[in-house]
Amino acid sequence: MSKIVNVGVSARHIHLSQEHVEILFGAGYQLTEFKPLSQPGQFASNETVEVVGSKGSFPKVRILGPARSATQLEISLTDSFAIGVKAPVRESGNIEGTPGILIKGPAGEVEIQEGVIVAARHIHFHTSDAEKWGIKDQQKLNVRLSGERGMVLENVIARVSDSFALDMHIDTDEANAAGARTGDTAEIID
Amino acid sequence: MSKIVNVGVSARHIHLSQEHVEILFGAGYQLTEFKPLSQPGQFASNETVEVVGSKGSFPKVRILGPARSATQLEISLTDSFAIGVKAPVRESGNIEGTPGILIKGPAGEVEIQEGVIVAARHIHFHTSDAEKWGIKDQQKLNVRLSGERGMVLENVIARVSDSFALDMHIDTDEANAAGARTGDTAEIID
Repeated sequence: MSKIVNVGVSARHIHLSQEHVEILFGAGYQLTEFKPLSQPGQFASNETVEVVGSKGSFPKVRILGPARSATQLEISLTDSFAIGVKAPVRESGNIEGTPGILIKGPAGEVEIQEGVIVAARHIHFHTSDAEKWGIKDQQKLNVRLSGERGMVLENVIARVSDSFALDMHIDTDEANAAGARTGDTAEIID
Repeated sequence: MSKIVNVGVSARHIHLSQEHVEILFGAGYQLTEFKPLSQPGQFASNETVEVVGSKGSFPKVRILGPARSATQLEISLTDSFAIGVKAPVRESGNIEGTPGILIKGPAGEVEIQEGVIVAARHIHFHTSDAEKWGIKDQQKLNVRLSGERGMVLENVIARVSDSFALDMHIDTDEANAAGARTGDTAEIID
């Protein structure tokens, strides 16, 4: 049984705590939905912020909602060199010891002390998909992206939850290295 | 026998014809060597040019020397989106039907009609290395880059010549997707 998953390419983006939403956009401000994402309840918001590193900045970084418990900026390694922030490859939420950054919004700015990561490539599985394919949460998978720039990505982390929809997330470096785009498919080979 | 090669990461760069060197830098101008490259006789020059796409430009693109028969700009896919040039993945020298671009130097500018490519990943083999490992010119290889972002690159083109030194060339997207740097090693697995 071949195990085929859809690919979603994550451009640089930021998750904000509600406290930081209010510092950046004003007291009581709520993020507004621009479009839904593949994971249930998640959305790209209409709002963007500027992030400022030691060598450069990105003026319009999309905020993904809803607000989370901790602010986290996800960039590619190419981005990290461009703005001068030494972001490590981490799973989302695992930000201890990562670098911080200055974030600017229309109503204020905040300098976070940690939270800048390069997101480790991963596949979201609904529990039923994982059971069907015999895949465990946190299992590391090998996944083939086909084509002229075909490659097999190793150490793709399985994330299993009843709240997830089946989708593979890679960043823009990985997508461009493979010539892959959102909507392509990939095959879990082992 | 494991087949280990050194990795060289190619940042965006340009090769110029002598005619274009003279348009951009002045009549009779000769490129000057900044440092030698891995391939015998090739060098990074002290000179840079600006390249201007429809959406943006790169102000300082390194020229690699010596001058060639045709001008060719090599960028990553990430770069191609950034400046708005639809560069295809091609082997060096195979520029028919590729997009052109505006190039600006201190003494003039030139708009090439073709020559912008994303270089296909490849390994240079001296003929003796290729014979030892049973590898043919133009053979497509699978090559593993190890580590946290480990991957197996497919369709890596073998290029065999008495004038080559053993070295694998990948672009910055591929390097960043793999967490690889110049001086790392890779293994040809089949």
